[in-house]
Amino acid sequence: MPKKFFTVSKRTDVIQKIPSLITLSLAYEEMDILSAVNRIASKDVFASFSVPSFKKSLVDGFAVHCEDTRGASNGNPIPLKLVGETHIGDFPSIRLANDEAVFTPTGGVVVDGADSVVMFEYTEMRGNEIFITKEVSKGENVLPVGDDIQKGSIILEKGDFITPEKIAGIRSFGIKKVFVFKPVKVGIFATGDELCDEGELGKGKVYDSNSYALAAEVIKDGFIANRYEIVKDDKEKIISTLKAALNENDVVLMSGGTSKGSFDFTVESINLLGKPGVVFHGMHLSPGKPTVFGVIDGKLIVGLSGNPLASFLVYRSVVRNIIFQKMGIKLKRKIVFAEITENIPSRKGREEFIIGKFSLDNGKNFVAPIFSESAFVSPLLFGDGIVTIPLMSEGLKKGEKVMFELW
Amino acid sequence: MPKKFFTVSKRTDVIQKIPSLITLSLAYEEMDILSAVNRIASKDVFASFSVPSFKKSLVDGFAVHCEDTRGASNGNPIPLKLVGETHIGDFPSIRLANDEAVFTPTGGVVVDGADSVVMFEYTEMRGNEIFITKEVSKGENVLPVGDDIQKGSIILEKGDFITPEKIAGIRSFGIKKVFVFKPVKVGIFATGDELCDEGELGKGKVYDSNSYALAAEVIKDGFIANRYEIVKDDKEKIISTLKAALNENDVVLMSGGTSKGSFDFTVESINLLGKPGVVFHGMHLSPGKPTVFGVIDGKLIVGLSGNPLASFLVYRSVVRNIIFQKMGIKLKRKIVFAEITENIPSRKGREEFIIGKFSLDNGKNFVAPIFSESAFVSPLLFGDGIVTIPLMSEGLKKGEKVMFELW
Repeated sequence: MPKKFFTVSKRTDVIQKIPSLITLSLAYEEMDILSAVNRIASKDVFASFSVPSFKKSLVDGFAVHCEDTRGASNGNPIPLKLVGETHIGDFPSIRLANDEAVFTPTGGVVVDGADSVVMFEYTEMRGNEIFITKEVSKGENVLPVGDDIQKGSIILEKGDFITPEKIAGIRSFGIKKVFVFKPVKVGIFATGDELCDEGELGKGKVYDSNSYALAAEVIKDGFIANRYEIVKDDKEKIISTLKAALNENDVVLMSGGTSKGSFDFTVESINLLGKPGVVFHGMHLSPGKPTVFGVIDGKLIVGLSGNPLASFLVYRSVVRNIIFQKMGIKLKRKIVFAEITENIPSRKGREEFIIGKFSLDNGKNFVAPIFSESAFVSPLLFGDGIVTIPLMSEGLKKGEKVMFELW
Repeated sequence: MPKKFFTVSKRTDVIQKIPSLITLSLAYEEMDILSAVNRIASKDVFASFSVPSFKKSLVDGFAVHCEDTRGASNGNPIPLKLVGETHIGDFPSIRLANDEAVFTPTGGVVVDGADSVVMFEYTEMRGNEIFITKEVSKGENVLPVGDDIQKGSIILEKGDFITPEKIAGIRSFGIKKVFVFKPVKVGIFATGDELCDEGELGKGKVYDSNSYALAAEVIKDGFIANRYEIVKDDKEKIISTLKAALNENDVVLMSGGTSKGSFDFTVESINLLGKPGVVFHGMHLSPGKPTVFGVIDGKLIVGLSGNPLASFLVYRSVVRNIIFQKMGIKLKRKIVFAEITENIPSRKGREEFIIGKFSLDNGKNFVAPIFSESAFVSPLLFGDGIVTIPLMSEGLKKGEKVMFELW
C-alpha cells in the first residue's frame, strides 16, 4: 500500500469535516423523566399552556375597568358597584361590566372584563359601593397571562441535558416522560508495551490512565463507554481489537503508546482495515498534535496520544465536538472570563490548551496555569478547567483576560 | 400539646446547628473506579510514588557533575570521558564518577551521580571524549523526581466527587478501586390538595414539579432519591407518609402546598411524630422564608415551600449543606464574579436568592437576573445559576460585581 502523506490540520477543520464522513446510528427512546437525568433530549418540548394561566393580581385590591377610574383622587372619589370577591384558587365566572369592581387578593384571578387592579389603600367602602381615590392605568397591578412562560414556547430543546433545573421547569407542565437520545457507544482501549493495568510497576512501565479517563469523560457526556483491555504494540492485536471495537460501538478511541513508532502502528492498522482509512493525521494543537482520525465503514476511529493530558484534552476539544455535531446539537460549555496570573508564551499557528486553577479575589476571577515541563498528572488532579490559547496568538500576558472553560 | 413559638433564624445558623441534632448512618464501600463516577470519596488517597519517578532530562545532551564544567567555554573546552548512553525507558545502572558523562535524550533518565545535563549544542565529540564548551549549574536541564507529584501527597480527598479528571490523575498510580460513601437516602414527597401528577389540569390545580426537581437535585449530589406519591392536605396521611419515609430514608423532604394552612399541617405533623420535633421555623431568606426543620429520632425532616423556586433554592443552599457538613466534607461550588445587569433592591436583614442568566461580552462576565412578580418556571428553565444578595445588603446596583454560582 502506498504511504499517504498527511498535512497537519486545524482543529476546527477536523471538527467541521469529519461529521460528513461518518454515520452515527442515532436512536431515541422515551424515558421517565427522573431516569433521564444526564441524558440528552432528542426533541424539542413546548409549553402546553401559559404560566400564569390566568390574569393574576399583584396586590390586594379591586379589579376594575381602568377607564372607570379616570380622574379619581382624594378630592374626587369615584364610586363603583362591588359585585363580588375572589379567593386564591377561585375562578368565579363573573364578567365585569362598566362601573363595577370585584375584590381580589394578591395572587388571585383578575376576573374577565377587568383590566387593572386598584390597591386597597386607594379605596373606601361605603355600603355596597367602593370609592376609588386614585386612577389606574391599563394593566396596572395585573400580571398578564404568560408573563412567566407563553403557551407554545420552547421549554426543553433538542440537545439539552436533562438537569434538575430543567426537570423542575418542564414538570410544571405535567410532563412525566421525555424523548432522549439512546447513548452513543464509544469503544476505548489503550495500546503500548509499557502499559500496566495494576500491580507492581516494572522499570520503564506506567499505569494506563487514558482508557479510564476517556471512559469517564464519555460517561459524563451521556454516552456509553466500552473499555477494552490494554493492547500490546502488535499490529495484529491492534487490528483485531479495532475490529471488535468497531463492531460493538459507534466510535472507537485508542490511545497510543508514548514510544516513537506507536503512531505508525495506529495509522497502518486503520488503513489495513478498510476505506477511507486515515483521514486526518496531525493537528495544529498542543498537546495533541499527533492525533490520527480514521473512518472505516462510516465509523470514526481516533488514535490519541499516550500522554494523558493530550488524550484527555483532544477528547474534550475535538472528539466530543464531532459526536455532538453529528447528533445535530450544540455543545453547551461553562466558559468564563478570568485574568491569567502568568505570562504563557505560545507559538503562532498552533492552538494550545493549558489547564488552570480558578480562584476569586476582590471581585475578580483569576486562573493560574498548572504546568511544568512534564506535569501530566497534577493538572488533571488539581485543575478546574481549560484555557485555550488561540491559533494565531503568540501567548498570553499576565493579567490578560482569557476564556476559561470550567469542567 | 402547647404550641411552640419559633423565631425566624439566619440560614447560616440553621446550617451550623442542625448537624449536631441529627445522626446520619454513614457507610462506605469500595468500588471499581469507573462505576464510581459521580460518587463521593470517603477517604483520602495518597500518591504511592513520585511523578516523575526518576530524574528526567529536559534536553538532548550529556549528564554530568556540574562542578566538572566550571569555567567551560568555547575558548576553554573541558574534556569529559563518555561512559555510556541512555535511551527513553532505559534505566542503566551506571553511577557517574567525576569527569565522566553519559549521553541522555530528552525525557531520558539522568543517571545516578549526575546532577545536570549539558545541551548537545554546547559539546564537541572527539573520539571517546566530549568537550564541554559551556558550564552548567546544579540541576540545570534536569526535571527533579516528584516535580509533578510528590510521593505521599494527597491525590484524592475525602469529599471529592469522582470526576473524569480525578480518575485520569489517580489511575496514574494504578488505582482501580476507591472507597466512596454509600449514598445518603433522601425521601421526598409533595403535599397539597391542588397538586396533580399528570393528566388534564382542573381549574386551580397545578402539577407537582417540586418532588421531581428535588429528586433530580438529590441524584446530582450523589444521593439516592426515593420519591413518594402526592399526599393530600390531610394530617393523618401526611403523618403516615412521614413515618414510612423516615423509616426508609436518612433525610425526608416534604414540599408544602401553596395554601395558607399547609405549613401549620407540616409543623403539627412533625411535632406529633416525636421529639424534639420542629427545631427551626422560618429563615431570613427569600424565597424560602417559611421553611420548617424538624428532627425525629435523629433524622432530619425539611418542610419546604410549595413554590418551586423556593423549594429548589432552599434545598441547594441549606439542605445539601447540612448533609455534606454532617458527612464531614466541604461542598465545592462553581462560583464566579460577574457584573449584574440591573439594579435589584433587597431588604436589609434578609438574604435573597436570584436566578440569573450568565453571558460573556468583551472580556467581561455578566449576569442578568431572571425574575418577574411570579416567575417560578422560566428562571429554572433558562437560568444558569444563582446570585446571593447577602443578609445585610440593601440590594445590588447595576454593574456591581456579584458572586454567581453556576449550577
